Amino acid sequence: MNRTLPCLGILGGGQLARMLALSAAPLGVRSLVVDTEADACAGQVAELVVADWNDEAALATFARRVDVVTFDFENVPAAAAERLAGRVDVFPNPRALALAQDRLSEKTLFGECGLATPAFEPVDTRDDLRRAVSHIGLPAVLKTRRLGYDGKGQFRLKTEADVEAAWEALGDAASRVGLILEAFVPFDYEVSVVAVRGRDGEFRSWPLTRNWHVDGVLSLSLAPAPGCTDELETAARAHAKKIAEAMDYVGVFALELFVQGGRLLGNEMAPRVHNSGHWTIEGAHTSQFENHVRAVLGMPLGDTGVRGPSAMLNWIGEMPDPAPVLSAVDGHWHDYGKAPRSGRKVGHATICAPDAGSLRERLTVVGERLGRVAQVEPGILALG
Amino acid sequence: MNRTLPCLGILGGGQLARMLALSAAPLGVRSLVVDTEADACAGQVAELVVADWNDEAALATFARRVDVVTFDFENVPAAAAERLAGRVDVFPNPRALALAQDRLSEKTLFGECGLATPAFEPVDTRDDLRRAVSHIGLPAVLKTRRLGYDGKGQFRLKTEADVEAAWEALGDAASRVGLILEAFVPFDYEVSVVAVRGRDGEFRSWPLTRNWHVDGVLSLSLAPAPGCTDELETAARAHAKKIAEAMDYVGVFALELFVQGGRLLGNEMAPRVHNSGHWTIEGAHTSQFENHVRAVLGMPLGDTGVRGPSAMLNWIGEMPDPAPVLSAVDGHWHDYGKAPRSGRKVGHATICAPDAGSLRERLTVVGERLGRVAQVEPGILALG
Ligand SMILES: Nc1ncnc2c1ncn2[C@@H]1O[C@H](COP(=O)(O)OP(=O)(O)O)[C@@H](O)[C@H]1O
Ligand SMILES: Nc1ncnc2c1ncn2[C@@H]1O[C@H](COP(=O)(O)OP(=O)(O)O)[C@@H](O)[C@H]1O
Ligand SMILES: [Mg+2]
Ligand SMILES: [Mg+2]
Repeated sequence: MNRTLPCLGILGGGQLARMLALSAAPLGVRSLVVDTEADACAGQVAELVVADWNDEAALATFARRVDVVTFDFENVPAAAAERLAGRVDVFPNPRALALAQDRLSEKTLFGECGLATPAFEPVDTRDDLRRAVSHIGLPAVLKTRRLGYDGKGQFRLKTEADVEAAWEALGDAASRVGLILEAFVPFDYEVSVVAVRGRDGEFRSWPLTRNWHVDGVLSLSLAPAPGCTDELETAARAHAKKIAEAMDYVGVFALELFVQGGRLLGNEMAPRVHNSGHWTIEGAHTSQFENHVRAVLGMPLGDTGVRGPSAMLNWIGEMPDPAPVLSAVDGHWHDYGKAPRSGRKVGHATICAPDAGSLRERLTVVGERLGRVAQVEPGILALG
Repeated sequence: MNRTLPCLGILGGGQLARMLALSAAPLGVRSLVVDTEADACAGQVAELVVADWNDEAALATFARRVDVVTFDFENVPAAAAERLAGRVDVFPNPRALALAQDRLSEKTLFGECGLATPAFEPVDTRDDLRRAVSHIGLPAVLKTRRLGYDGKGQFRLKTEADVEAAWEALGDAASRVGLILEAFVPFDYEVSVVAVRGRDGEFRSWPLTRNWHVDGVLSLSLAPAPGCTDELETAARAHAKKIAEAMDYVGVFALELFVQGGRLLGNEMAPRVHNSGHWTIEGAHTSQFENHVRAVLGMPLGDTGVRGPSAMLNWIGEMPDPAPVLSAVDGHWHDYGKAPRSGRKVGHATICAPDAGSLRERLTVVGERLGRVAQVEPGILALG
């Protein structure tokens, strides 16, 4: 071949890397993925290098083969990201990654940028926990500062009696990953801003997405978020922009927010493409995956407008029967090619429609045919 | 992995295989591609086996590894397809493939199915050619019966004086691939029906696509075809259905038609996903690539409705600057990752819009920014 294609290096080979690689290909971009597991599902659609995050030699070779490095997995050790950044462009930058890996620094930054958060306090010891509970009150949530995802590493405290149980559950982790106590927010609903920032600082965001979690794991998303006022939408996007600028962030990220009495509270920021942005593959003019590839490679960003309303259903544990979605008009199936395992994200489906009424109808039919009425129900009510 | 994903075998590893593999992945389908060239562009997104079409051992191993075999390349020797069909499901069936590989049997079938064609006659010798010219008249086109594509293997005859030149150019090929003389049709315009037929006989077709060729190679497509009456659309789809049924065809195919004075004339049938269906990736609810994968694997077919009008621009020889398309709202870039070469299809772009007026505007802007006003012009006039 007398033509060298740009090569995107991706740390982590899960479904996010897989969808990044699938979006990179039409742009003429090859992907090279690193994962610690030989059966990482991105390896089905791109070249996979199996290596540990502390395998310096493997990462050095990887760095030589790619034009830019990005992340499928936000918990790549910051040290590994730093080392790579000495050899090749890494986006988002390792400082932004490290910041977003830590709930304490993340929430501190939110505050500095003018975004309110639930009350929070760092917790290192059992005494810290007691003190934090007395300051913040109950109910509250004790979380690991780092390495938590999909509701893992969290303990909810309802009464004083839960303090001991919470320490029992997470006290061990305190020295390794730190802990944070947050006020439990009786939110009206949850939304996320999925946004992208280019190397040149250009910022674009998709319409707000409304999200429903079950057991701390995303179950359903609707976009554009029904019931959001223009003011809320504008404010949320402005917060995302300010935070991204503060971090000199490049690429796609998601800002998760609670809405309570018309007020926005920052929950967390994911320094990568995000589950709540999967609907953009079919529902927006440019998907979060394509815009992330464009951003980190310095290509022009694509339009983040929508074609109409979309609903995203997450498949956890195992894939359901595909037929109901495959047969739905504008229904789209995403099987990550992963082995089934309890609690694991194995796929998703997106249903698009020209208007809220027909999305509601399609979602109703799909939910019934799948025998998953409970999963679609909150969306149907919100679209109602 | 304690899960076995279905595996799609694809003979030929060009851009069609590449786009098939990219569409197969979200369905949880792996692809295994065979090509004679080690740098076949589908190898960038799927596992590639390099083998000659007559390498029986390699094809037998390939057959064992896949669940079903299909084609990116319609000129796979029919004998190789037959041999594979003895081991594994092959769709479209080798008889249909062989039929569509030969312009004579193809046009004969069109006639049997009630679809008119330009007058035609087989040509084996110089005398045959003279006789055919006296029957059919001039202008006419002498074509190879087999192995022609992108206008290759064709000679246009305007006057009697061209008969010798035509024989000079193609006479050598007569014994290898056969020849056919066709009346040259002063058509009003060209359209294609892109359609899919399932294993169970279910038939679906996308709206008619209008096509413009330059030097025998597709340059521009618009869908739904502007200016087509409902009668013409219905008739064209009915012809496609009848022909597919006659061949017991399974998968996606394209029927290329000339429109002359409101009448349809069959030109040729491509037994595979087709360049004139590339717009379906973004412009339709289900793309031709996804529906082909679904059809050959026996999954439910997806909806072939459109989101709005689309335009597809082919990139021949080398890729233009991507920026104008990447910056266009609902503009989509497809770089096949191929090395540039004169006359080679290296990529395409699709521009979608909510209505004909805005498609016209977007196409105008993209054409100007690309410096390719001539390429977009016929589309702009047709949308006018
Ligand atoms: N302080 C809180 N108040 C109320 N609900 C919370 C709070 N923190 C987390 N949750 C609920 O748990 C979900 C997962 O928690 P989150 O902090 O986002 O962790 P993860 O990194 O696992 O996504 C949230 O989306 C929300 O539904
Ligand atoms: N009989 C004909 N009359 C007029 N134009 C023709 C005729 N045959 C071919 N052409 C023109 O040449 C193009 C390519 O010819 P076609 O037979 O479709 O061969 P290919 O297999 O290369 O696509 C057609 O799309 C049409 O524009
Ligand atoms: Mg979260
Ligand atoms: Mg043709």
